[in-house]
Amino acid sequence: MIDRPPGSQAERREAPLAGKPILEVLAGRKAARTPVWMMRQAGRYLPEYRATRTRAGGFLDLCYNPDLAAEVTLQPIRRFGFDAAIMFCDILVVPDALGQGVRFAEGEGPRLDAISDEAALAGLRTEIDLDHLRPVFELLGTLRRELPPACTLLGFCGAPWTVAGYMIVGRGGEALEAMRLIAYENPAFVDAVIERLTTASIAYLSAQLDAGAEAVQIFESFAGSLPPVFFERWSLKPIALIVEGVRARHPEAKVIVFARGAGPGHVRVAQETGADAVGLDWTVDPGWGAATVQPMKPVQGNLDPLALVAGGEALEGATRRILAAFGDGPHIFNLGHGIVPQTPIAHVERMVEIVRGG
Amino acid sequence: MIDRPPGSQAERREAPLAGKPILEVLAGRKAARTPVWMMRQAGRYLPEYRATRTRAGGFLDLCYNPDLAAEVTLQPIRRFGFDAAIMFCDILVVPDALGQGVRFAEGEGPRLDAISDEAALAGLRTEIDLDHLRPVFELLGTLRRELPPACTLLGFCGAPWTVAGYMIVGRGGEALEAMRLIAYENPAFVDAVIERLTTASIAYLSAQLDAGAEAVQIFESFAGSLPPVFFERWSLKPIALIVEGVRARHPEAKVIVFARGAGPGHVRVAQETGADAVGLDWTVDPGWGAATVQPMKPVQGNLDPLALVAGGEALEGATRRILAAFGDGPHIFNLGHGIVPQTPIAHVERMVEIVRGG
Repeated sequence: MIDRPPGSQAERREAPLAGKPILEVLAGRKAARTPVWMMRQAGRYLPEYRATRTRAGGFLDLCYNPDLAAEVTLQPIRRFGFDAAIMFCDILVVPDALGQGVRFAEGEGPRLDAISDEAALAGLRTEIDLDHLRPVFELLGTLRRELPPACTLLGFCGAPWTVAGYMIVGRGGEALEAMRLIAYENPAFVDAVIERLTTASIAYLSAQLDAGAEAVQIFESFAGSLPPVFFERWSLKPIALIVEGVRARHPEAKVIVFARGAGPGHVRVAQETGADAVGLDWTVDPGWGAATVQPMKPVQGNLDPLALVAGGEALEGATRRILAAFGDGPHIFNLGHGIVPQTPIAHVERMVEIVRGG
Repeated sequence: MIDRPPGSQAERREAPLAGKPILEVLAGRKAARTPVWMMRQAGRYLPEYRATRTRAGGFLDLCYNPDLAAEVTLQPIRRFGFDAAIMFCDILVVPDALGQGVRFAEGEGPRLDAISDEAALAGLRTEIDLDHLRPVFELLGTLRRELPPACTLLGFCGAPWTVAGYMIVGRGGEALEAMRLIAYENPAFVDAVIERLTTASIAYLSAQLDAGAEAVQIFESFAGSLPPVFFERWSLKPIALIVEGVRARHPEAKVIVFARGAGPGHVRVAQETGADAVGLDWTVDPGWGAATVQPMKPVQGNLDPLALVAGGEALEGATRRILAAFGDGPHIFNLGHGIVPQTPIAHVERMVEIVRGG
């Protein structure tokens, strides 16, 4: 900035980014050093997380307890000095705040009372109950005060297709395959659920930004088995509407879109959603991503979480390949999916060390 | 052929293709009409299959009974007049013929006693026991005699990574994810299993061609969650070695490679394996496939099996989009994955009708 007149518009716009490498990258610039964080970094691989989790009661109790949620959000920041903190929460608080009960049974994953038709959808709220989500916004306020200055605070939500899958099927994993058949058989119903979620997500993300989030990520966890017409209609388009809707209220809002399993569709995420950065899953060849996606948008990713579990040569090689491929452009180092519970902490330390030049 | 001198080499080479649209396409030519078959076309959606299956005893008993296996192979040909018959068998007869027992429990999927290290691998046969697979070759002989003249007889095997997954993990589905971690932690062991399977697959496919198969398909059912270095080392390279090894014995052998979930990797299948045709799964955008894969190799695919279950507009639209996208080049119409048991027979009839111009 030294060769610009002081007080110019460019300087004013860039000033808040000073010292926040993630925001630098999201503004389209290569950061002085590659910033790094991990999806699901507040999680079961950390003993301090497990201890706090036990104190909280159920999983949703932890999400809705601002003090404990702040504690688990900050734990990985203290340990590893990550460049981003992602608020501790779950994508399913949105159906919860639409009136569709969500239960997390230990070792089972989430369960919802599936809604299978328009009548069941009519039983839910039209608009998201932001008051129900007040603990989340309180959490963001706390985090914004407590985070180190270089650390960017991220909010998030699930993409409509992924959240709709849970709402319509009632559970995750392989069961979500059933959603595809329902979408063929009753596209109008899926349209209605997706529209409800699109509106809810705009309100929810906007409120997160009001409460202190400096950028948000949209998680399309279930893009992998979508036929292309579905991907366009129920993933790309609603995500684009969310980005547009959020920007209508927060013109400077920064949005990362992560569509796990999108394959060549990662290019369409870059082109068609309005995302500021594109998350790449671990199946993406970094060379391909650098040649096709990164020239359009900053990229985030994409270490295989299992390479992090394995450590050793697998970790060194994979981490260095990613850094080499994306090193010439704007890049946020991350995993290509959430960290898994059996990951040794020493491997995370080593990963951060390599990314930071070790 | 009318403008070539009779008895020329070109005519001799092409003569056997006369009236076999699948072989026309595999030779790189657009067929006069798009040929069609379905993966898993001999299957539970057919009442006559279920009746024969009951008579056979266990699933492997059916695979190893040439008369009953011929019967179920021919059932969909009689009903729908498909352009290819794929021998009724299973990819796991290969570990079975290497001495690793395979069990099929009803409603459970296959189970193997997992081999987890080199010592366990040493307990298996070095070379595949082709004598154990004699019923498969007998089946091919029977089918070659009984199939209508326009129908192409296909053999097949699983790709080494997919079969190795079952051998090392002991089961399929989400459990196969565990294979990725094992591959990071003990790549030398995975190399050894893959090598064993590569050699076995060359012998097995060559014997299928000796016995009457007119082309073979290699199924990489589990390409979807592979990091790119694994895809190259354990999928593309061994498949290329198999194609090369088979061609050393059968220089005219035609090979289709189907790597489900390969995403942009379908291009590498076309470029790097020596395949004569590339199977595309249902997540591939037909427009993308026509622009990137089909200019290199004939393509096969790629209707979503669930669009076939749904029928109606979903089936009409998806089928016509595929035909329109691939219609200018060599194309075999197929599903993008195996047909599922709940598929209505009337929908299959309608699909064939559309492909044949209805």
